Amino acid sequence: MASSIRDELLKVLIEHQPHFLSGEEISRRVGCSRAAIWKHIEELRHEGYEIEAKPRNGYRLVYRPDRVAPEELAPHLQTKRFGRHIRYEYSTPSTQTLAHQWAREGAPEGAVVIAEEQVQGKGRMGRTWHSPPQTGVWMSLILRPPISLAEASQLTLLASVGVQQGIKRVTGLPIQIKWPNDLLIHGKKVCGILTELRGEQDQIHYMIIGIGINVNTTSEHWPEELKKIATSLAIESGGHLHRATLIAAILKELEEVYQEYLNSGFRVIKSKWEQAAGMLGKTITARTPQGLITGVAERLNESGALLIRTDQGVIPVYSADIDWKEI
Amino acid sequence: MASSIRDELLKVLIEHQPHFLSGEEISRRVGCSRAAIWKHIEELRHEGYEIEAKPRNGYRLVYRPDRVAPEELAPHLQTKRFGRHIRYEYSTPSTQTLAHQWAREGAPEGAVVIAEEQVQGKGRMGRTWHSPPQTGVWMSLILRPPISLAEASQLTLLASVGVQQGIKRVTGLPIQIKWPNDLLIHGKKVCGILTELRGEQDQIHYMIIGIGINVNTTSEHWPEELKKIATSLAIESGGHLHRATLIAAILKELEEVYQEYLNSGFRVIKSKWEQAAGMLGKTITARTPQGLITGVAERLNESGALLIRTDQGVIPVYSADIDWKEI
Repeated sequence: MASSIRDELLKVLIEHQPHFLSGEEISRRVGCSRAAIWKHIEELRHEGYEIEAKPRNGYRLVYRPDRVAPEELAPHLQTKRFGRHIRYEYSTPSTQTLAHQWAREGAPEGAVVIAEEQVQGKGRMGRTWHSPPQTGVWMSLILRPPISLAEASQLTLLASVGVQQGIKRVTGLPIQIKWPNDLLIHGKKVCGILTELRGEQDQIHYMIIGIGINVNTTSEHWPEELKKIATSLAIESGGHLHRATLIAAILKELEEVYQEYLNSGFRVIKSKWEQAAGMLGKTITARTPQGLITGVAERLNESGALLIRTDQGVIPVYSADIDWKEI
Repeated sequence: MASSIRDELLKVLIEHQPHFLSGEEISRRVGCSRAAIWKHIEELRHEGYEIEAKPRNGYRLVYRPDRVAPEELAPHLQTKRFGRHIRYEYSTPSTQTLAHQWAREGAPEGAVVIAEEQVQGKGRMGRTWHSPPQTGVWMSLILRPPISLAEASQLTLLASVGVQQGIKRVTGLPIQIKWPNDLLIHGKKVCGILTELRGEQDQIHYMIIGIGINVNTTSEHWPEELKKIATSLAIESGGHLHRATLIAAILKELEEVYQEYLNSGFRVIKSKWEQAAGMLGKTITARTPQGLITGVAERLNESGALLIRTDQGVIPVYSADIDWKEI
């Protein structure tokens, strides 16, 4: 992503917060005239940024609106490739749909689609995902892993590990993975991950990791039936979170586990997933297309299936909704 | 597929071959006027069908051009769903591309795209597939299996079993499967299968089984480098084959193994695949993205990976090109 004057200006202001920086100094750092700086500062103010100007002191950033636009993300990004190409929309039917289109057109690995709002957010198995404006992280990451179709499910589990670590790092909250890739806090869902792909038997053309996180959502954002089963990071932590900072942390963790996977394979990811899973060793009920399976959740197999120990022996579950009470 | 007057007429003529059938009788069976029958017979003649007409005897079919159009296929189809919806093109860049589009638009399971010629035929891993006009079977079958991504590779192996059985039934030739899904006769490639899909972790949206078979191809159809490694059913059997009959036989076998898979799972398919594979027990070299692996090909695992016994133990191979001399 080529850095624009505006992005540079914002970066300089953010880095210098809460102090003043003279117009001359800003102009030097950004590499353009003071008149141009003034024009861009007016533009930022128009978008909700509060920038104080004092005759002898210069400028300082007082308030940043909570946006997930590329220029808000850029100062926080510590990745090599993830998030270095971004398509940002205020409102979109679904970031997954946009990402599919971009991937078919040749988007590079690590490219991300981010929106403030999804009006037809997608969940697993054709379900919808409630995505009210400017309250959550609704994003889709494009990957091109050099693996076969048989290994694709490993990436789904990898994604939940990366996102779980990113959220934990920023919030410190006790967040657990529910197979295959929901994230829960105190038994309530705070994040859903949807992995989609297009590929052939021994090659994945592209994979899209869709991530939906309830960040600053309050319970009045939700319809009645969601209030009992959903939560948000703000509800759990008691405070408002800066979403762009969170996104940057998640992309960093995802890039790291992905690199680890490419270098060393699934073994390390599998062990991290098992550590972060809340359900292992517990009695669970899996609603599968073939019927109900009740037993003790033991571990993952190499394909990412969940192994459940039942009276009839150990059964691998590839697709299911899981119920378990205690967490 | 709604049956047209023309399809009905052709069906009646084919069923009655080599005998004459009176215009009156044809008109009764097809259910339209003798004038309409005459019009359609003229149209068929225009497309290369030879239909003899004798004043007192009526009509008889003398020669059918070797086409793979739906009306040529219909009289031979013995399936419930496979091939019951067909998109037929004389020439197309790739039947896979058309099938992807149709599947996204909602094509039903079992729908098939068939062409006389592909000008940009697709092989595995972005390779091209040489598909000269009216010499082979170039088709793509759309499936919507109720399985997860982790199980998708099983369908690739299922496809090679179905196609192998169909070809064997029609030709009696000693045709063997080379992992993952090439079909060989006397060590030369006669058929390639390309499985592509779009899906999410626990649901496949659609899967496309692309099948390319050299049927009546003669070696002058091929560039020099293909002559050594490719063969056709005609070369091996010494005679011209009716492609529509072959397609119908393959669709029937595919439908049967697919139904068996849905009813009883991968176990039966795996055992059929292993029986039809030419390479098990032989020393092979696998060129994988991680390097060369040499050892004895043992069997498949549950994910469809090929297990190779090497000095370092048994290694599962998910993606590779295989070399083995003896067949």
